[in-house]
Amino acid sequence: MLIIDALNIPTPERRWFEEWRAGGVSAVNVTVAIWENARETMSFIGKWRRVIAENADVVGLATSADEIERIAASGRTAIIFGFQNTAPVEHDIELFRSFRALGVCIMQLTYNLQNYIGCGYWEEKDLGISSRFGRKAIEEMNRVGILIDLSHCGDRTTLEAIELSAKPVSITHANPREYVGNPTFGAGRLKTSEAIKALAARRGVIGLSPNRHLTKRGIETTLDEFCDMVAWVVDLAGIDAVGMGTDYCPGHPPTIRNWWRYARWSRETAPAAQMQKAPHEGWQEWFRSPADFGNIVAGLERRGFQNAEVEKLMGGNWLRLFRETFVSAEQA
Amino acid sequence: MLIIDALNIPTPERRWFEEWRAGGVSAVNVTVAIWENARETMSFIGKWRRVIAENADVVGLATSADEIERIAASGRTAIIFGFQNTAPVEHDIELFRSFRALGVCIMQLTYNLQNYIGCGYWEEKDLGISSRFGRKAIEEMNRVGILIDLSHCGDRTTLEAIELSAKPVSITHANPREYVGNPTFGAGRLKTSEAIKALAARRGVIGLSPNRHLTKRGIETTLDEFCDMVAWVVDLAGIDAVGMGTDYCPGHPPTIRNWWRYARWSRETAPAAQMQKAPHEGWQEWFRSPADFGNIVAGLERRGFQNAEVEKLMGGNWLRLFRETFVSAEQA
Repeated sequence: MLIIDALNIPTPERRWFEEWRAGGVSAVNVTVAIWENARETMSFIGKWRRVIAENADVVGLATSADEIERIAASGRTAIIFGFQNTAPVEHDIELFRSFRALGVCIMQLTYNLQNYIGCGYWEEKDLGISSRFGRKAIEEMNRVGILIDLSHCGDRTTLEAIELSAKPVSITHANPREYVGNPTFGAGRLKTSEAIKALAARRGVIGLSPNRHLTKRGIETTLDEFCDMVAWVVDLAGIDAVGMGTDYCPGHPPTIRNWWRYARWSRETAPAAQMQKAPHEGWQEWFRSPADFGNIVAGLERRGFQNAEVEKLMGGNWLRLFRETFVSAEQA
Repeated sequence: MLIIDALNIPTPERRWFEEWRAGGVSAVNVTVAIWENARETMSFIGKWRRVIAENADVVGLATSADEIERIAASGRTAIIFGFQNTAPVEHDIELFRSFRALGVCIMQLTYNLQNYIGCGYWEEKDLGISSRFGRKAIEEMNRVGILIDLSHCGDRTTLEAIELSAKPVSITHANPREYVGNPTFGAGRLKTSEAIKALAARRGVIGLSPNRHLTKRGIETTLDEFCDMVAWVVDLAGIDAVGMGTDYCPGHPPTIRNWWRYARWSRETAPAAQMQKAPHEGWQEWFRSPADFGNIVAGLERRGFQNAEVEKLMGGNWLRLFRETFVSAEQA
């Protein structure tokens, strides 16, 4: 069975690759940029590619569904490069193609804030995809083979991007608002049932997360409750529209939260209470890291999903979506 | 027979691709950066990749000797991306790997001036490869599969780079100083017999150019005289060390000479006399453009070279060198 985690933010270190191997993880979408500009991202991708080459016994870079299958079949984990923001593109249409050539197959249109393309969930207003560049950017991502991700986008940006994209799109890491309510990260960070249904109607996939800041009862959330949420979304959107996206982010110091939240656009710092622990510490016992993916498989089976359904939920749906979207118009 | 032109600086336009097809050109090293920084180069490479995709009936991007052969066999011209300077790397060791991933397989260590790595021919002094970064850069280029080019480097930088590189290196476009003397571009731009012999001893290749600014009698140089120069270098360095590198640079306005010469490091402008014509206009009748490569083939045959020798000179030597050098240490 393929296990695909549609969002991790690890530092480029072997110890996280070993967790993936322990969990039998076939592929991971690894965030290589959030707020960084083109130049910074280019250097970081160079570093990531080097670390992948140095650890070729356990990981490999993948830029197609076939490569994911081949790497997974060799007992390694396929790394897919993704952005959580389009900041690296810097309002330059040619950079989508350059970053795709560097291996970036997934891009979230916006992180938490408004940018050239749309609006993030942490803005007060959301104009949707109304900017001239926003529409061209979606066309270009479709053209060069980049999967659009809407996890942190505002509600209107999310709905309009689903509608505008000629290819199916993704929500790599978010939970359903109607089911969860108001978690630590806020209800805005979750997705409306309208958005999840629209996504599914266009053959997209949503990745559900055990991240304690995104679940109904936070750190108290049980495995059975997580699986109940999976079943709830399957009932809403269908078995072909749901996958995993843990939002697991190992290796960073607690102060990384300042960067993720405020980057360079403000001099504020995150509340001290948010910086007590490194972001990957203190997860639930049943999912301390991707090494524990087996627990989720067991939980879903216990919840009554059939084998073929579990395979779709754990990775099959993502692989199908990647096969449709990581392809350029020139290849097709 | 493979015909490989080891240096062109065309604008990204189909009309130049059609000249290559008319001349039966199998592969061209296309300059995609001289003075540009990482960010600018990234955008320009995005544009080049798009134009290649839009003209896939006549050209294709190649990053290995096998791809060159495959593209040439399909009746198209393989484009190899090259830099004429390491400016895009910006003193950042990780960027060699990123640019290699973007398709850049050849980098000239310096253009005319001193940089982080070494010294160009148009400086008064040349410290060779004495900088700390210079030595690391050569190691890294060897490691990630980038062929080193020394055409515009100073004499000492040229000799020391030949010596320091673990892989054979190239002089993609320069003529022999001892044979030519002092052409329009100056004797310094040409290569010493010592350098050419050292290059050949380490299995490198020099590309000879019909560019009127690099030949003994300028625009008056005849085809037979050009072929005599080829024979002279073959006598000096051996039949395996010589190829073609025209320095043909179509599509630019005459004012491009200001950029090539002074970029942003000075406010001077090139002498008006140098800006009377676009750089690709007014070449000799027997080589007005790469469409005329057949004339050189005929000239070499008339000069008495055997078929197998002509094949080496026109492209075989470059293909052999590319096969040895476009490979990363991880692949090897």
